[in-house]
Order: sequence, then C-alpha cells, then structure tokens
Amino acid sequence: MTLQYVLTLGCPDRTGIVARIAALLVEAGGSITEAGYHADQQTNWFFTRQVVCATGLGLDELRDRFAALATEFDAGDGWRVRDAEAPRRVAVLVSREGHCLYDLLGRYAGGELNMDIRVVISNHPDLEPITRAHGIAFHHVPFPRGAQGKRAAFDEVRKLVDVEEPDAVVLARFMQIVPPDLCEAWAGRMLNIHHSFLPSFIGAKPYHQAHTRGVKLVGATCHYVTEDLDAGPIIEQDVIRVDHSDTVADMVRKGRDIEKIVLARGLRAHLEDRVLVHGNRTVVFG
Amino acid sequence: MTLQYVLTLGCPDRTGIVARIAALLVEAGGSITEAGYHADQQTNWFFTRQVVCATGLGLDELRDRFAALATEFDAGDGWRVRDAEAPRRVAVLVSREGHCLYDLLGRYAGGELNMDIRVVISNHPDLEPITRAHGIAFHHVPFPRGAQGKRAAFDEVRKLVDVEEPDAVVLARFMQIVPPDLCEAWAGRMLNIHHSFLPSFIGAKPYHQAHTRGVKLVGATCHYVTEDLDAGPIIEQDVIRVDHSDTVADMVRKGRDIEKIVLARGLRAHLEDRVLVHGNRTVVFG
Amino acid sequence: MTLQYVLTLGCPDRTGIVARIAALLVEAGGSITEAGYHADQQTNWFFTRQVVCATGLGLDELRDRFAALATEFDAGDGWRVRDAEAPRRVAVLVSREGHCLYDLLGRYAGGELNMDIRVVISNHPDLEPITRAHGIAFHHVPFPRGAQGKRAAFDEVRKLVDVEEPDAVVLARFMQIVPPDLCEAWAGRMLNIHHSFLPSFIGAKPYHQAHTRGVKLVGATCHYVTEDLDAGPIIEQDVIRVDHSDTVADMVRKGRDIEKIVLARGLRAHLEDRVLVHGNRTVVFG
Amino acid sequence: MTLQYVLTLGCPDRTGIVARIAALLVEAGGSITEAGYHADQQTNWFFTRQVVCATGLGLDELRDRFAALATEFDAGDGWRVRDAEAPRRVAVLVSREGHCLYDLLGRYAGGELNMDIRVVISNHPDLEPITRAHGIAFHHVPFPRGAQGKRAAFDEVRKLVDVEEPDAVVLARFMQIVPPDLCEAWAGRMLNIHHSFLPSFIGAKPYHQAHTRGVKLVGATCHYVTEDLDAGPIIEQDVIRVDHSDTVADMVRKGRDIEKIVLARGLRAHLEDRVLVHGNRTVVFG
Repeated sequence: MTLQYVLTLGCPDRTGIVARIAALLVEAGGSITEAGYHADQQTNWFFTRQVVCATGLGLDELRDRFAALATEFDAGDGWRVRDAEAPRRVAVLVSREGHCLYDLLGRYAGGELNMDIRVVISNHPDLEPITRAHGIAFHHVPFPRGAQGKRAAFDEVRKLVDVEEPDAVVLARFMQIVPPDLCEAWAGRMLNIHHSFLPSFIGAKPYHQAHTRGVKLVGATCHYVTEDLDAGPIIEQDVIRVDHSDTVADMVRKGRDIEKIVLARGLRAHLEDRVLVHGNRTVVFG
Repeated sequence: MTLQYVLTLGCPDRTGIVARIAALLVEAGGSITEAGYHADQQTNWFFTRQVVCATGLGLDELRDRFAALATEFDAGDGWRVRDAEAPRRVAVLVSREGHCLYDLLGRYAGGELNMDIRVVISNHPDLEPITRAHGIAFHHVPFPRGAQGKRAAFDEVRKLVDVEEPDAVVLARFMQIVPPDLCEAWAGRMLNIHHSFLPSFIGAKPYHQAHTRGVKLVGATCHYVTEDLDAGPIIEQDVIRVDHSDTVADMVRKGRDIEKIVLARGLRAHLEDRVLVHGNRTVVFG
Repeated sequence: MTLQYVLTLGCPDRTGIVARIAALLVEAGGSITEAGYHADQQTNWFFTRQVVCATGLGLDELRDRFAALATEFDAGDGWRVRDAEAPRRVAVLVSREGHCLYDLLGRYAGGELNMDIRVVISNHPDLEPITRAHGIAFHHVPFPRGAQGKRAAFDEVRKLVDVEEPDAVVLARFMQIVPPDLCEAWAGRMLNIHHSFLPSFIGAKPYHQAHTRGVKLVGATCHYVTEDLDAGPIIEQDVIRVDHSDTVADMVRKGRDIEKIVLARGLRAHLEDRVLVHGNRTVVFG
Repeated sequence: MTLQYVLTLGCPDRTGIVARIAALLVEAGGSITEAGYHADQQTNWFFTRQVVCATGLGLDELRDRFAALATEFDAGDGWRVRDAEAPRRVAVLVSREGHCLYDLLGRYAGGELNMDIRVVISNHPDLEPITRAHGIAFHHVPFPRGAQGKRAAFDEVRKLVDVEEPDAVVLARFMQIVPPDLCEAWAGRMLNIHHSFLPSFIGAKPYHQAHTRGVKLVGATCHYVTEDLDAGPIIEQDVIRVDHSDTVADMVRKGRDIEKIVLARGLRAHLEDRVLVHGNRTVVFG
C-alpha cells in the first residue's frame, strides 16, 4: 500500500537541513512528490513542506524519525507529520450572511476540499435547512445581548466544537467577537474571513468605511484569529474593482464573491498543511 | 406608487437621440436613476440603457411612447421597456459538474440575483436532491448516445423549458451540443459558461488544451449561444493564474472559481437588461 | 472646422438635467461622441462628462451657454468646458526614484498622453540627463534639512511651477511633504502616487509596513493632494500579488510596476477631464 | 569572498536527486539561499533551481562537480551552473513601436534588471536618440521588401547580435518574422513579446482580431521564439480588462502596459535562470 504523508517544519536556519531531510526520506524509502522550501533572511528562519509518497513506511515510524530531526534542529513544536489523505475535520461558525457557508457546502458536496464538515453552529436559525440538506449537523446557539449571556453562549459553542476535535474552526462570516480563551484554545486552527483588504477597514462595516474613503478596489482577507481583532496572521487576500457608481450595497455584493474565494483558498491551504506561521506572518507554500 | 422601468435601445446613430429620450422621460414624469450611453464609431450604432423612476406612469403607456420613438429611430426590434423589479424567470440546464449550479442556488437562496429559478433540467440525476432542497423543480432527461435519442431528449427539454417562458436559459456546464432549432428559439436569452478564455480552446477539454499549450492563465467565458460552437457574443470573461506546478486537475479546480463568477456576472448583466447585442459583439452597461 | 469639446458638470440632482444639456447641444449643432452620467443617491448629486463634436461652434460661445445652465443648476464652479484636443500642460516633481518619471517620459515620447511636460523639478540632480534627452527643462532645487531651508526651496519650486500655468502638477515619487499653501494653490490639479493601497500604510516606508504586516498583495494609489497626508480623493488604485518569499526589496520592485501604471492611469483620467471631485470622493468616467 | 551561484537541472525523475544535490552542496561548503523543485507527474521529469552562497568555492569547481551529477542523472545538456551576479548580456531588436524599449531602458537606467544592454538594433532609425541617451549602441538595419533584401538584413542583424554573445536576444516589438536559422542559433535565449493572450490571435494585428471577436480582456505573452510563429514555450502572460467602449486604439493603448510588464517579467525570469524549458512548456521558478 502506498501512502502520502505531508511534513512541515519551521526552525532556525542552518546549513544542511535540506540534505538531512532528503537523506532521511531516501533512507525511509519515501519519494518526494511536492516540496517547498523557504529561508527567511530577515529572521534567519527556515521553512519546508514536503509531500512524500512512501511504500511500507508507517505514519508513526516516519513521525518518530522526523521528530528526532526536528529536535536536533531546535524546531520546538514547529513541525508536523500527517497522513496527507485523511479528511480534515471542520467546524463552521456562521451568523446570518450565508454566502460563505453556501460556498463551502457546494465545495463540500463536490468533494473539492479534503474535509469533513462535522458541524455548523450559528447564532441564528436561518441556515439550518440548507445545512441539513447537505447531511451536516446544525446547532442554533442564540447569543443574547449582555456579556454574561454571550459568555454562556460561547461556552456552549466551545463544547459543540471541541467534541468534534476539529482541524479547522472556520468563522464563515460569524459576527460575534471570539473571547480570548477560545482564541487561545483554537490558536493556529481558527480561520476568519474579514470583508476588507486588511489592515484597511478593521472592525465593523468595512464596506461602509471603504465607500466613505472612496477606494477603487474592495477586498477580503482570510487570517488566523488571535486576540487582537482582525490583526492575526494573514493567509490569503484578494480584491475586486469598484467605482463611483457602486453603492455600499454594490460593494457588499461584489465583495461577497471575493470573500468566498479568499476563504476557500485560505481554508484549502490550511487543510493541506500549506500554511506555516512565524510570528505574525505566514509562509504559504503554493 | 413608484415604479422602476428599464429601457434599452440600439439603433443607427444620429444627432439628438439622447435629447429626445430625455425629453420624453421628463414629459412622462420619469426621473433617470441610471443611464448608460454608447456610440460605436465603427458601426455608427447608438446604444442606451436607462433606469427610470416613474410615479403614476404605467408600463404599457411608457412602452407605447418609447415604441414610437424607437420606430422613428429605425431601431427595429432593438428596443425594450420592462419593469425593472419583476423577477426574471430562469431555466437551468446542467450535466454532472455541479459547481455552477451550486453557486447559482446559493445566490438564489441569498436573493442576490433578481431571478426566479423555475426549473433545473439535467441529463443526469445527481443534482436532483440539492435542487429540490432549494424548492426548485428538477427534471432528469436522459440523453442516449444516438442522434435520434438525443433529438428526442432535446425535444423534451424544449417542452420543459418553453412552458416556463424563461427570460434566461442558462447552460451551467451542460455538456451536450444544443441543436440549431433550439439556438434559434432561445436566441438572445440562452447563456453558456465555457471553461476557457475564448477564442482559445474551443470545444472539449479546454483545460487539457491549456495544459498542453503551457499557458500561464486559465479563464472562463460567458456568452450567448449561437449555432457556431463557442463562437457567440461574449458577455463576460475572466482569468486566473496557473503555473507549471498545476496539473490539469489543478487547472480544473482553479478554473471552477472563475467559471462560477463569470457565469454569475454574465447572468446578472443579462437579467438586468444590461447586455445589448449587435452583430457578434455585446455592449454591457456597467 | 470640427472641434471637440469636453464638458463636465457636478450639481445637485433634479429631474431634467440630462434633457436640458442634450437640448442645448442639439440646438448648438453639437453631437455627443462620449457621455457619462452618474447620479449619486447618497449625496443626491449629479455628475456628467460629455465629449461633443461641434462644427462652427466656438469654445467661448459654448462655454457661455453652458455657464448659464450650470448657474441655473446651482453648480457653483463645479463645471467646465474645454477644448478636448489642446495638450494639457504638466509639471513633474520627483526625487531620486526615477521609475515613475522614466515611465512618464516614455509615454510622452510615444505621444500616449495628451500632455506637454513643461518642466521637471527635483531635489536631486540625478534625473537631469534623461529629462533633457527628452527635450524637457529640468530644475534642480536642493532641499536643505531645516524648516526654513525647505520653505525657501518650496517657494522656488512654486515659482518654477506657477510660471508654467500647469493643468497638472505630478508628484512622481517626490519625497517631500508639500506645505498647505501649495496644496491650496494647486488644489484639484496636484496628483500624487503613493506606494501603498491607501488607506493602508500611510506615510513613510509603506513597503516595510506591508512586509511587517504580512499582506499578500501590495498596491499603489493615485490621489489628489490635500493638506491631510495621503488622505486626498483617490483617483485610481491597483495591486499586485506578493508572497512570503518576497523581501521588502522584492515588494519595492514589484510595487514599482503598479505605481507606474496607476499614476499613468490617474494622470490620463485627470488630463482628459474624466475626474470630478465631490467631497473626498471622486467620480471617474471611464 | 562570498559568491552566489545559480544551479539549474532538468532530468528524468527518480528517488534521491534532492538528497544528492543537497549533499553535494553541503560537502562543497555552500548554503542554499533559494531553492525551487518541481516533479512533473505527466512527463516524469524533475526540475530544480537553486541559488547557492559559497565561500571559497570556485565556479569551475562547482560546475565540475555538478556536471558529474547531471551526467549520472541523464540530464544531457539540461543543466547549468552560473555566477548569479554577473550581469547578463542583452541584445534588443525593435521596430517602430517604442513602448517596450522605453520600458527596458528605464529599468536598465534604474538598475532593476541584472543586465547589460549591449546593443539595440532596429529596422527603423526612430529610436536611436533615446537609445544613445542611455549610452547604448544603436544600429539601424533597413529591411527592404523583397525576400533577398530581408535575408541580407537578417544576416547583418545576426552579425551585430552574435558579436555581443548575448544571454538574451529580446524582440521588443520587432515586426519582422525571424528566419529558421536564427531561431535555431538563438534557441532558448530569444524572447518575444506578442501582443495577445496566446494561443488566441496569433500573427498580425491581434488587437484588431480581439476587437472583432468582442473579447472582454486583452493580453500579452512573452515566449521563446521557435520556428513556429507565436507557438514557442510561454514564459509569462497577463491580461487587462477592456469593454465595448474601447476602440482598437484604446485596446492598443491598454495592451501596451501589459506588454511592457509581461516582457519585463519574462526577461527577468530568463536572466535569473528561472526558466527551464521542457518540450513546449516551461517551468518558471518564482
């Protein structure tokens, strides 16, 4: 049986890392089908992602060998070995705007992304029917106005998410600010789609802000969520042209198409272990 | 009660058309909320599209007045007056690739396009459940291999479509070549999405052709269907970057996102009467 | 003799403006070759730009007639009638980075823009030879460090510019902050190219800021200069993709291509009277 | 003294190539500063480009060692080791349209590309002054109409080019069809900029063809020249949006900006040994 593994590593740069990894893989009978390398000159940090085709080599064995190397290279927990083909487990949080969810469901139905959407959770019931039509569990968790009510709601969301042990928690236009403890719990696997070309127009109503400023392009940003609002490491961005004839509503409409694509690209990169985070920046292997 | 009408006109250019239309609208108590004008120097043809806000003026009355003007300007049947807000009736034809249909259904559910999808027809049963989940009728019309069987199938498709009197017949990745009589019957309202940047890669397997040629961008084209395969008037096109690391399968995947957007933009333009055809070229008012 | 005039008007919206202008033009024997209209719903303001082909009608006569209409429509000084074909007079201010100047000179030599570059002024002597090779006057005005020296330098710049009565003062990567009195003197005709996608990364070293934030696209913005640094009305913007492998130097290099194009497009729009400013936003007729 | 070398290799894929090259470099005291790898599944061919920083290792020594490896891997002449920093020698052929030449000269003056433009040759004298203003030799070689005269002209061009031993022969809008013997002599180092998105609109007047077909984007293609007109391996392409209001002249103007950028990007990739050709396709390491 032939298996595909994906290896990622980020560690201080030094001479010989590529050679050592390559030697390890040759020795283990693996052949590289995809490889990305990046040496960041500014931080003197080295990054690699490799997809390896291995016959008769087990995941645990490869992980053990790679772990030893990672330790030698002072990688800390900045490395990973995973079965490339095992579907990633995904939890989606959404509010009322359904376009990103619809888009993810369409890609899910078409098998476009290597994911298993385990659950969709929303502070509104609107999107339950379409979610269920795709055979996916849906939970409506109402978010009351006060701080206490919100806290309780987030606790419930956390339970519903954590039980699924997701590889990705996707905020697909989820309009509640996630509290710090959840940011920490899901660090490195919670993705948000923000409807502006960050760092422009942080926070609420970015299209209104964009319209007021009179910009000629609007954009969207997929980023990891951290405690700092809309300031986490950016995975993917794109823009679309607007002009004076576009009202805020037109910008919202045009922006939706970019949001969907940017989220899908960012999620894909995350699910395929293409994204390595270092500080507040990402390396995204194409 | 205030109504919105959309007027379109294509006719030989001459001095004074704009003034005459504007005067007619003032006289009729209408105010222009959106106006596009284009004078094509090469063909000496004039095009306009206007959205008019009218209080107390009926559709029939406005149409009568505008018809008189159109006749005077030798417009033939190159003019139209319509209620801008009445949902357009749409029939969708699709085969097995579902991404364009999923995308249209998502936009339909979100009320993004001013359309009423009356029916989805397919030569495969695969997409029935999701169509029905959106409350839309679905017909499976099998297409046998021989010419005679196909002819009978198309006759059935025609019946199913014509009974809906659609404003748009959308080929959302429908993989059968539409016979000339249907092209004629639905001329000017049958839209196709072709998965290449036409006129490159006409016909079957455009992504394979693109991969073989080694292009650095792949694209999609939304065009009106005419008897000449993939040669009808182009409404909208866009492209996405690919590189040497993209297999045909990668191109197919990346191309899908462009197909969805290009079809949605083209369909939107059509439904809002923004597209005026002249010869094999289109004027698309933004 | 046939002449081409360009008319622009911005005024409070009301019923009948289009009709009145059109009637005036018909009466004056002019035929419209290009027309743009925009009614801004939010501000209830109307904008138009029309290119008129007139036989036997003088510029002054047309201007008089149009002035009367503009007054009636409460346009204030928000209107203009100009000979469309008379070359626009341009003054360029530049520092050491030459790419935008080289680009403008190339377009000037190719007759691509309807402009007469009257003078290039720089706080460095580096770009004198290439400027003179194009037959254009060059002035080196040194900018000393202190406030007083800078003031004197700007006074000299002002003299050198004003004597040319330019239709456009182009800051083609001019790295000095223009004082308020010059902003006022050249209001509505001083264009800057900023090397970021505003409002992101205002001020100095935007590519460094972009690199630190880890954005996936860098951009450029052409805007009218006002007293507020990098906050004037935006005329044109565009972006280019970057990734983790791009150093600041790479971003600078890639950004240059966008700066050149965005400046050229913005300048072209300005020279052809396509840009109408209202508040801090622009209407740019395509 | 620290030197930078660039290594490229294309050969049949097999297990262990990466490891062997990496080991060689470690052994030689070189450290990798940039590395690209690509394994083409369809052709089972392996490609790599590596930039190596070496202290005390000579170019000849590294080349000898790498040559041995390349032989072992059956690379034939599909490998190269070069001093990364030595300026590449460039010859430019141009006709009357100067925008691409102006652009290259601007980049040359700004030191943007690692090149030494040795000579500009044209069948028209128009661009001599600007070329000489940049301190570059210019030769006017008239091309008479008949086949014999053209042959003689090409022979002269060949002499003028070959004496410079150029790393790149750039057809910067050179409007003569290069004969087969020159295509062969300069195979793999003659780059053309074609003013369409190939394979659409091969041959003469592509913008006219594009206008007639009514496309919504026009493009440009930088490719290696082969005997088959406009059919050589594509290095880079890009497009720009046009619409119904664009005349052929507008398309020409908009297209120029894309031609300049696409040529500059393609040339840069070539000069930095980023382009590996295999069959009629290219691998371009970013």
